[in-house]
Order: sequence, then C-alpha cells, then structure tokens
Amino acid sequence: MDKRVPARKKETRGLVIVYTGQGKGKTTAAFGLLFRGWGSGLRMCAIQFIKSERGKWGEVATARKLGIEWHRVGDGFTWLSKDMDETVARARHGWALAQEKIASGDYDLILLDEFTYPLHYGWLEAGEVIAWLQANKPAGLHLVITGRNAPEALVAYADLVTEMQAVKHPFEQGIPTQPGIEY
Amino acid sequence: MDKRVPARKKETRGLVIVYTGQGKGKTTAAFGLLFRGWGSGLRMCAIQFIKSERGKWGEVATARKLGIEWHRVGDGFTWLSKDMDETVARARHGWALAQEKIASGDYDLILLDEFTYPLHYGWLEAGEVIAWLQANKPAGLHLVITGRNAPEALVAYADLVTEMQAVKHPFEQGIPTQPGIEY
Repeated sequence: MDKRVPARKKETRGLVIVYTGQGKGKTTAAFGLLFRGWGSGLRMCAIQFIKSERGKWGEVATARKLGIEWHRVGDGFTWLSKDMDETVARARHGWALAQEKIASGDYDLILLDEFTYPLHYGWLEAGEVIAWLQANKPAGLHLVITGRNAPEALVAYADLVTEMQAVKHPFEQGIPTQPGIEY
Repeated sequence: MDKRVPARKKETRGLVIVYTGQGKGKTTAAFGLLFRGWGSGLRMCAIQFIKSERGKWGEVATARKLGIEWHRVGDGFTWLSKDMDETVARARHGWALAQEKIASGDYDLILLDEFTYPLHYGWLEAGEVIAWLQANKPAGLHLVITGRNAPEALVAYADLVTEMQAVKHPFEQGIPTQPGIEY
C-alpha cells in the first residue's frame, strides 16, 4: 500500500475503467485486474462480447480453474460478420446479460470485454447504455470495459481511461501469434 | 484462435514484450499475461524491481495461491530514495537474479516488472543489459518488461512495445486508490 496516499478513510468507490486505443494490451490489462482482484477476494464476472464459445483461449482455462464466472456471447466477428443480424442480436443478448449481472449487486468487479464495438458500430445506443449504468450500477462495483474506439460518452462517464498505443508490433515483423501470449 | 492467421507451422518464438508510457495499465497488462499464461500451463516467474517485500499486494496473494514464483527486490523507492546506494544495490541484485532465471531455461515467461527504472536512471547500463539478453535469452522464452521511460535500446530490441497513455485518471478527481484494483 502506497504510504504517500493521504491518510483518509477509504471509501469503497467502484471505478469505471476503460482500456482503449489501437495498441495491444487492452484485454490483457483487464485480465491483470482479474489476476489482482482474485487474490484480494473480489467477486468477479467477465462477459466477452466478440469472442465465441468455440475458441480455445488461455484466459478461459484460467477462469475455469479459478472459479471466475465467464461468458462469451460473440460469434467471433465484428464488422466482418457475414450475418449481421446474428452479430447484433448477440451483442444485445450480451448487454441484457451484463445488465442482469450489474444490477444484481453480487459482484465487486465486472469485465465487459470488447464492449466498445457494439457501441461504436451502433448495435447498442451508447447514450442509453451510459444512462442505464448511471442509474443502475452499484456504487461499489468496479466496471472494466475494453476495446478500440471507445465512444465519447463512455470516456466522459469513466473514471479511468487509458489508451494503448502500438509502438512496435510483431505481426509487422512476420512473427506468428504465440499460444499463451496472444490467446 | 484467430482463423484469419495464415496457416503455417507455429514456431515457438519467445517474444520480448514492453509495456511503457505514462498511463495506467502497464504492470496490470503484464499480470494479464500471467493470468492467460497460467491457464495455458506456461512456467512463469516474476521479479518486481521497485516493490518491496513489506507491502501487501493483491497480485502477490494471487501468485502465491497459483504457485507462480514471485520475487520483490525493491525498497519501494526510485528517484525518491533516501538511500540511493541501497536502491542501486537492490536493482543490481534483482538483475543478477533475473539473469540466473533467464539463463536457466526453466521458464516460458519471465516478468521483469518496473525494470525500465534501473535502466532509465542508469543504475544498470542499458546497452550491457540488452547485449546480455541477446546472447543469453533462450529463443522460446517470453520476456515481459514494464515501466515508464523505456530506453531506446530496449524498444529497439523488443518485439512488441505498447505505450499506455493516460486519457483520464481518478486521482485527478480526488478518488482514493481502491484495494484489489490499484494494489
């Protein structure tokens, strides 16, 4: 604990944390919060909006072993979808699930991974989503949202926003994705 | 697994990953790699260069429960140190430990957390460190380095560099640090 923080009674203030930008590390940073929060005994839940149930992901294996509730509601596509009705329906289903989990009061931290895409592409109306969160998010709940192109309304609503910028990327150098690192 | 990656035989190529910049999420992203890697069965080790053994950190609790080898070699200070000899000696001790772990071949992923500070402040000579890594890092080992002000030699050596930029920070709004999130 940082001794330089001014002594005052700690309030439980649930933060709205956004990791956005074009660089790597957005979803990974969110997983880092799960890593840290798990050790602190936080009650946590993750909803992944783009990834589908079919893929094999290191993080899902970890979550299963740690007993972290994990949902994947996507079909693996965003703007590349061949069935946009399906993609949009999945995003809306995911948001309904997120609303249920957020409103339940059963969690200390909820991750909405790649949730910026449904907002950016207009599958969900960003203003309505933020208004609902303002009215319904429990004060103590930490809400973590990742993805490129975070809408302005979300940035305005959030407490902590970090933009990941790519300085150097291995794909550019012809290095293939690495198991355990990229997925 | 991303189906869009061209089909080619996967090589085990250990990546050198750097999370730098002034924003939040550098160390957290590194913890996310541990979270994902643990589920994939990677053999992992973390050395924290600034944090001391005394603090209580959520990530240390997690690492202990998950059986991830974890070392904290710092005294909690960087440029604010009141005993610079001690701070420098700790950084050099940490680097010697890192060299031992890296050269051992016993790990798939090693995290050197806040390792940019000893390099930036000249407690270790960046050119010598990079030359040693080039000669001694096993090809399959993923090496993850975090901290502000990554030296140019490190950026040049790395495969993947992401810069975290602060868009919005809760301290600015008078919100205190939150357990399980910040520490």
